[in-house]
Amino acid sequence: MPGPRQIFIAVIGAGGVGKCFLTQLKTLASRLSQSHAAPTYFSLVLLSTSKKLIYSPTYQPLSLSTWEEQLQTSSTSAKSPADVLEFLAKADEPVVLIDNTSNQEWADSYPSFLKQGISIVTPNKKAFSSSYALWKDIYASARNGDGKGGWIYHESSVGAGLPVISTLKELVETGDEVRKIEGVFSGTMSFLFNSFMPVGGGGGSFSAEVKKAKDLGYTEPDPRDDLNGLDVARKLTILARLAGLPVESPTSFPVQSLIPTALESCKTGDEFMQKLGEYDGEMEKLKKEAAAEGKVVRFVGSIDVGKKEEADDTLTRFDASHPIAALKGSDNIISFYTARYGENPLIIQGAGAGGDVTAMGVTGDLIKCLRLMHS
Amino acid sequence: MPGPRQIFIAVIGAGGVGKCFLTQLKTLASRLSQSHAAPTYFSLVLLSTSKKLIYSPTYQPLSLSTWEEQLQTSSTSAKSPADVLEFLAKADEPVVLIDNTSNQEWADSYPSFLKQGISIVTPNKKAFSSSYALWKDIYASARNGDGKGGWIYHESSVGAGLPVISTLKELVETGDEVRKIEGVFSGTMSFLFNSFMPVGGGGGSFSAEVKKAKDLGYTEPDPRDDLNGLDVARKLTILARLAGLPVESPTSFPVQSLIPTALESCKTGDEFMQKLGEYDGEMEKLKKEAAAEGKVVRFVGSIDVGKKEEADDTLTRFDASHPIAALKGSDNIISFYTARYGENPLIIQGAGAGGDVTAMGVTGDLIKCLRLMHS
Repeated sequence: MPGPRQIFIAVIGAGGVGKCFLTQLKTLASRLSQSHAAPTYFSLVLLSTSKKLIYSPTYQPLSLSTWEEQLQTSSTSAKSPADVLEFLAKADEPVVLIDNTSNQEWADSYPSFLKQGISIVTPNKKAFSSSYALWKDIYASARNGDGKGGWIYHESSVGAGLPVISTLKELVETGDEVRKIEGVFSGTMSFLFNSFMPVGGGGGSFSAEVKKAKDLGYTEPDPRDDLNGLDVARKLTILARLAGLPVESPTSFPVQSLIPTALESCKTGDEFMQKLGEYDGEMEKLKKEAAAEGKVVRFVGSIDVGKKEEADDTLTRFDASHPIAALKGSDNIISFYTARYGENPLIIQGAGAGGDVTAMGVTGDLIKCLRLMHS
Repeated sequence: MPGPRQIFIAVIGAGGVGKCFLTQLKTLASRLSQSHAAPTYFSLVLLSTSKKLIYSPTYQPLSLSTWEEQLQTSSTSAKSPADVLEFLAKADEPVVLIDNTSNQEWADSYPSFLKQGISIVTPNKKAFSSSYALWKDIYASARNGDGKGGWIYHESSVGAGLPVISTLKELVETGDEVRKIEGVFSGTMSFLFNSFMPVGGGGGSFSAEVKKAKDLGYTEPDPRDDLNGLDVARKLTILARLAGLPVESPTSFPVQSLIPTALESCKTGDEFMQKLGEYDGEMEKLKKEAAAEGKVVRFVGSIDVGKKEEADDTLTRFDASHPIAALKGSDNIISFYTARYGENPLIIQGAGAGGDVTAMGVTGDLIKCLRLMHS
């Protein structure tokens, strides 16, 4: 079998996750040469933000130490996916595209890259949770039994670096029957409800806790983007599809929005935040009802693989002793109920958001990709 | 890149795990042709128990449906690892050896197989938890950057099919700093203490619970093999080594045996079981002391990666709300405390013993191996 060879890497996005990833990539480059379990040679040949781009026309390695200054001083504007593909397709070594954006245009371009044999590693949820047609196109274009097409890995599209997608894939591929997937899939929702209604009592009003979460950076700039439930719905869509359900879109199953109906017409996030306190009564009622039963309320998503009503995300009551109630901080928890695991599910728990842990899922996928391409 | 090709598989062991694995292998063979994410072609060319063997001298595929009858009627005795290696090394296609035994002789032979380019997939703890010299020899003989040697995968050597080893490897390879690993690593110990001291009170005497666990098949035929703590020590040894600690042997750190000193000289397991009840007082005392603090006792293992005292397994008290206290049945739980995950560890939980879930780890590793060999 062939030995190691050069592999080219192109990175799109140098924001929160992208910056952490590039730091990990630099460490990886220096570690790989000493590692017994990973391949050795890769070169960064292109790096792009939404505005600017640096690349090496002759595919000579860009520096992993000075990319930030180089980007700042670059006079080259960012290019379209089609233009980047044209450049990468001409390379005479294998290429991995790392998309650290959450951009739909890049997601839509994955099939073209994969068909050209370019592998893709990404935390971009939109590629796998938008139309079912795009999902099918991506997986049909990726490498399958025929040895053609690029590899596709997207661990960090659900639960950041937690081994959620690899575990689900392995359950399915080894022939287990996945019956139900349940969990807390949003770091924001986790933090919000762990603060709003901690086990043992306490917690402020709902609007106060939303404000706290926003101030601490746990929400999107506009908290409605978390409270509308769509982020969780996207993650459920990805897992449901991996479990074999042909989910048409993230809005094809019941999604509970925590935005009060009367506030749906708010024009800005600021207006929404100002008025949210007027509707604290609804959430307070739910909290009291749950407390009367000795329970707490959490925002969970679940997929019933056997049933027609494939997935939903909703407020649910849990006993204080339930692992979902005991969750801390902004942790995610994902439980897989399967034929082999029986009544006690396989559970994965831990930080499901944050630059470093999200980038870790990307770096881990890249290592898997490199190993496949080097072998 | 080359397309799919034939890969030969040799399986040692057809007991509890082995039988489940062969069933999964048959399902895999029929599933792979439809799967988008896995390679297609493999053939079983050798299958051996500790007594008998069937093989195909011309490397034609053995039947995955009739292997049980074929083994029964076979007149060929089992061969030594060296003889099996001689046969497999002559194959002109890549080979994966699946060792579903817990045999030290097979474990000792891994370096020879790996050096011949034969990949190994196994749940056999002894290969990775005996002498540090064997560990180093195995990993030095396996494929590393130079493209030579076979691949080695052993997910099911800790926590059965739970993604424990793959997760730890990924933490290390992506550059996280693993500070502490803590958990319940033995399905037997988990069941025993969850029954002996359930959260909320209750539970029988220690000897009665050991007897119950034995009767339900949760212990080794001789329960002393579980109670001596060596099984947990072996698993800790494997994880500590993967985290970078050069642990010499599973007895190089403190191991707490639950065998009363006075019973260490018992000649048989039956004698031990008859006398164990006389020493229930010691365990009862621990139970009462913990209960007085509102806690429960669990048998946990931990590895402090930074400290000199590398690992230990011992009885520890936990608050009722702690995830380790809340464990159910014979589940395992493993917590990774790392720099990236901070105060809230990455946790993996679920069945850590049983034929089907152990075989699942083996099948999952085989799929990874096939994918690498096909790519």
